[in-house]
Amino acid sequence: MSELVLYDIPGKSPESKAWSPNTWRTRYALNYKGLRYRTEWIEYPDIADLCKKIGARPTDVRADGSNHYTLPVLYDPLTETVISESTDIADYLDKTYPDTPPLFPAGTRGFHASFQAAYGAVHARTNALLKLVVLSVCLNLNERSSEYFRRTREKSLASRLEDVAPEGEVRDKWFEGLQDDMAKMAGWYRVGGGPFIMGETLCYADMMIAGRLVWAKVLLWKDSKDWKRICAFDDGFWGKFMERFERYEQVVQGST
Amino acid sequence: MSELVLYDIPGKSPESKAWSPNTWRTRYALNYKGLRYRTEWIEYPDIADLCKKIGARPTDVRADGSNHYTLPVLYDPLTETVISESTDIADYLDKTYPDTPPLFPAGTRGFHASFQAAYGAVHARTNALLKLVVLSVCLNLNERSSEYFRRTREKSLASRLEDVAPEGEVRDKWFEGLQDDMAKMAGWYRVGGGPFIMGETLCYADMMIAGRLVWAKVLLWKDSKDWKRICAFDDGFWGKFMERFERYEQVVQGST
Repeated sequence: MSELVLYDIPGKSPESKAWSPNTWRTRYALNYKGLRYRTEWIEYPDIADLCKKIGARPTDVRADGSNHYTLPVLYDPLTETVISESTDIADYLDKTYPDTPPLFPAGTRGFHASFQAAYGAVHARTNALLKLVVLSVCLNLNERSSEYFRRTREKSLASRLEDVAPEGEVRDKWFEGLQDDMAKMAGWYRVGGGPFIMGETLCYADMMIAGRLVWAKVLLWKDSKDWKRICAFDDGFWGKFMERFERYEQVVQGST
Repeated sequence: MSELVLYDIPGKSPESKAWSPNTWRTRYALNYKGLRYRTEWIEYPDIADLCKKIGARPTDVRADGSNHYTLPVLYDPLTETVISESTDIADYLDKTYPDTPPLFPAGTRGFHASFQAAYGAVHARTNALLKLVVLSVCLNLNERSSEYFRRTREKSLASRLEDVAPEGEVRDKWFEGLQDDMAKMAGWYRVGGGPFIMGETLCYADMMIAGRLVWAKVLLWKDSKDWKRICAFDDGFWGKFMERFERYEQVVQGST
């Protein structure tokens, strides 16, 4: 089997080189399926040029009408296909490699779409995790990406990044918001009998949540009190949940 | 097998005697499973006394701290069990009658919980269908229920029922809101390959949506231009969807 290529945005410290939540979904998917791949690291200001060059479709349109390009993007030399957007990549992988463990077990594709809507509605309420990590993301990026990230995020959040979730009362408030959000999702898992949304079988819905939590774990807080605080939510449910993903967290390096 | 009892709120015209969306979920479930049951009709002001008498738990607490009792309630003489709330009833039926078709196919219970959250978030946005039907519900109730319904709904909607969705621009606006809401859900079905959320297999998630649409169909609009307008949403998807439920729409009468 030829080697797939996952395009990702590099962090500057070795232990948090892979940090982006959306590309983590794809990394979990590739590792879970046991597919051979390598990572190509792309700085933020270079994403659009790369996508145009290899023929990756834009995933959104900006307010000014121009195309917006994002990672993850996957290139498959076997079929000479380029795919943008993590859910489309997951669909592609299930379809193209049907002998690997399914990301969408039979009969669950529609449920996954509604799960994504439910998950999106929960996070949209406070966007607490983004607020808790955004400054650390910026500080962990290489210079060109860091400048780009700060400029675009300070605009969308209408705040200096240093003022979004400073230590103390404000940060505690966002932790409480995150706890409320996670409690809603823990409720779905409790009803389903856990540890995964389908019970014992891992699926892409679980990777959506893990891809977001690993943001906090890898980038910022591993072994810190902040990460332990999240792990302790819902009587420790999320800490145990993330332990089950450790076997799918290898970062397969490629060119730098 | 002994006969289950479904408690429901009667409408006054014969063709819309069963009209309540939450009890319709349970009726679809009972008919789909092929279980023997009869319907007992209870007027709104009598629901609390009935529930206290037979030991049905309240489903909510009112603003003043008092218990709030709702239908559906199911009584099963086989196990001498009384169950409140349509989702709890569905869980009970799957557990107690495992040889009947499952409402929650294996591995989907957690997905059903997230589906309910996604579905709730969609409807909470406009609550358009409620607004379109609320006056007709009131006019279709017997006198004691009608008085109770008008008083409580005019309070919660902060409007005379006649002013919620009058013919013309206002009503058209709610139809557009409903169309937007249904389009979001049609998107989930499209991704899943339809006609049901799991594909070819009917499950309780589908009954949640059908139980809400049948509200419009049975009570108000069957063969009317309004019902046809809803059926035509999403290139006719919902009309075809509801046709598949016709075989589960028998209303098994009981005492009046």
